[in-house]
Amino acid sequence: ATSSGGATTLDLAVIGGDGIGPEVTAEALKVMRAATAAAGDAEITVTEYTLGAAHWLATGETLTDEALEQLRAHDAILFGAVGAAPNDTRVPSGLIERELLLKLRFSLDHGVNLRPSRLYPGIPSPLAHPGDIDFVVVREGTEGPYVGNGGAIRTGTVQEIATEVSINTAFGVERVVRHAFALAATRDRRHVTLVHKHNVLVHAGHLWRRTVEAVAAEHPDVTHDYMHVDAATIFMTTDPARFDVIVTDNLFGDILTDLAAAVTGGIGLAASGNVNISGTAPSMFEPVHGSAPDIAGQQKADPTAAILSGALLLEHAGRPEAARRINEAVYADIAARGGADGATDRGTAEVGDAIARSV
Amino acid sequence: ATSSGGATTLDLAVIGGDGIGPEVTAEALKVMRAATAAAGDAEITVTEYTLGAAHWLATGETLTDEALEQLRAHDAILFGAVGAAPNDTRVPSGLIERELLLKLRFSLDHGVNLRPSRLYPGIPSPLAHPGDIDFVVVREGTEGPYVGNGGAIRTGTVQEIATEVSINTAFGVERVVRHAFALAATRDRRHVTLVHKHNVLVHAGHLWRRTVEAVAAEHPDVTHDYMHVDAATIFMTTDPARFDVIVTDNLFGDILTDLAAAVTGGIGLAASGNVNISGTAPSMFEPVHGSAPDIAGQQKADPTAAILSGALLLEHAGRPEAARRINEAVYADIAARGGADGATDRGTAEVGDAIARSV
Ligand SMILES: CC(C)[C@H](C(=O)O)[C@@H](O)C(=O)O
Ligand SMILES: CC(C)[C@H](C(=O)O)[C@@H](O)C(=O)O
Repeated sequence: ATSSGGATTLDLAVIGGDGIGPEVTAEALKVMRAATAAAGDAEITVTEYTLGAAHWLATGETLTDEALEQLRAHDAILFGAVGAAPNDTRVPSGLIERELLLKLRFSLDHGVNLRPSRLYPGIPSPLAHPGDIDFVVVREGTEGPYVGNGGAIRTGTVQEIATEVSINTAFGVERVVRHAFALAATRDRRHVTLVHKHNVLVHAGHLWRRTVEAVAAEHPDVTHDYMHVDAATIFMTTDPARFDVIVTDNLFGDILTDLAAAVTGGIGLAASGNVNISGTAPSMFEPVHGSAPDIAGQQKADPTAAILSGALLLEHAGRPEAARRINEAVYADIAARGGADGATDRGTAEVGDAIARSV
Repeated sequence: ATSSGGATTLDLAVIGGDGIGPEVTAEALKVMRAATAAAGDAEITVTEYTLGAAHWLATGETLTDEALEQLRAHDAILFGAVGAAPNDTRVPSGLIERELLLKLRFSLDHGVNLRPSRLYPGIPSPLAHPGDIDFVVVREGTEGPYVGNGGAIRTGTVQEIATEVSINTAFGVERVVRHAFALAATRDRRHVTLVHKHNVLVHAGHLWRRTVEAVAAEHPDVTHDYMHVDAATIFMTTDPARFDVIVTDNLFGDILTDLAAAVTGGIGLAASGNVNISGTAPSMFEPVHGSAPDIAGQQKADPTAAILSGALLLEHAGRPEAARRINEAVYADIAARGGADGATDRGTAEVGDAIARSV
């Protein structure tokens, strides 16, 4: 890793993964390189890592310690998608998700999972009156019910008991809440909504609430409110335009961001960044969509979410100009699609080419 | 408690609660009595219990052991809504929910929480193309992250750690899964969807999956599939008509049923039953909506959700004819509203009177 600014080489690890992952990351890289040139930034170097369900089937390995150490040395990671076809019974369900994707998020301390949601012009929402949707979910990425702390006794008997433990620390909650308020301070509406379920999950909920109150006191310019997760799903369908920045735990963030992607026209456009805010390990950027094995290798996948994830990567790597160029080119490309359902009938590489040409 | 059939008196406990709770339960009782008479069932006797936030403010009591024992003696409980105004800082947040509502569900072993979702004619959905929505969420009611098992150490310091433990038992999961399959077997589409997050919540998820597979083997007439909770929120907005019976855990059920209520036109129509399937304690029926203190006492609340909860109660008390009469009268009343937003401009009692007249 040399530097994260635009003046020196940006050293990326790329994990294309399974299914459509390699196709969409190839287009993201194409666009990122074009934007880098247009912005006058130093070049991007790429090291490809072959990981995912197919790799596991071939080698029995998900993510070795050696691969993890190599990944640590890069400036950032561009991630495609992983996972076998749902009906491929050779791959134990959840294995690749946990031992590769979640292992990366946890090992590289991706405490802040950024998931912007925006309704682009011409993209149809399933909502009759979606309004002007433009918010960011700031999801905690290394704690909560995702920690893998739990177990079962008397498995397979009528006496079985299975537990899952949600672990929440002041350290983890505070850093993500701070990030949410700092982000809100840069936005027009400057508003943070904490989503939790503190009336039932008392201990975790109180930690989140107290932390939000404490951080809010340092941000008199940012307003904030609180919503139970169940109520948040109602507003997400009746008035999603009300949200600016949502901060929430790992599981609620997982649920809300899929719902948010749905109301903004589908996960084909949703980008995300798994951010290590202390810089002790590379951050990782990935489309929210999965590996879609059914359309893999056919140039049918829309690379837009991967391209937008590339823009998020550049922004976090200190290259705001290249990021801005990509975001604007994507915006224009989507606006020009004008299909009845907002989809594009161009192939994966054609979309990448078109956006790369106009960055 | 005398009997739960239509031939002997039905002995109800009524907890009107706070805000609009007493108004809407009064209308539910009015309609239940009219339907009882029309069906030729034996009469309903009612004992009112004063409980909720106002009662706590007046007495410092949420639910005494004595009140709980008295409630146990009834055939069923009709519950309105509880909770103070959100800005009433005298009532600790979550206290009434946990020490009254959840305490009732847990103490009376309400393992099966039934939440039907239906899009009524003329009721506008926030979805552009909602389709023909008619499903039931069968939510586990006594386990999962709702058990209150968790804690915190070093509270208020930078070293704070707060946990929440989700507890899942073969006993609790099996009874709710059995109920879901039995219910599905009585419906046209005969389909059960398990919603969980087993790729992350491995131990609980595997218990749920194994249980569904085992129970499904006994129901060759019922088909089933599986969906992660995040994906379920997508389908809930893009194709809710696909669902028939959803079975899920306590927290996912809480989230999905608010979302379901939203897509079917709001929680003003959503009914629910907290069912003790072994009959060891009374079941409890309640609208999904809250106490809405802002409109309390003004005859502004729509009593429809409470009335539909009354129909669910009668059905579970072995009075299907009276229940059917209420459901049909409600259906006709809603269809006749025809307001631009499906709302009624009649007062609370007027709606109750109109439905009571036509059962
Ligand atoms: C694949 C899965 C483990 C993952 C998650 O639950 O975080 C995904 O749903 C996501 O949102 O990135
Ligand atoms: C009030 C609250 C404790 C309750 C729950 O979470 O179950 C409510 O949201 C519901 O769905 O009945």
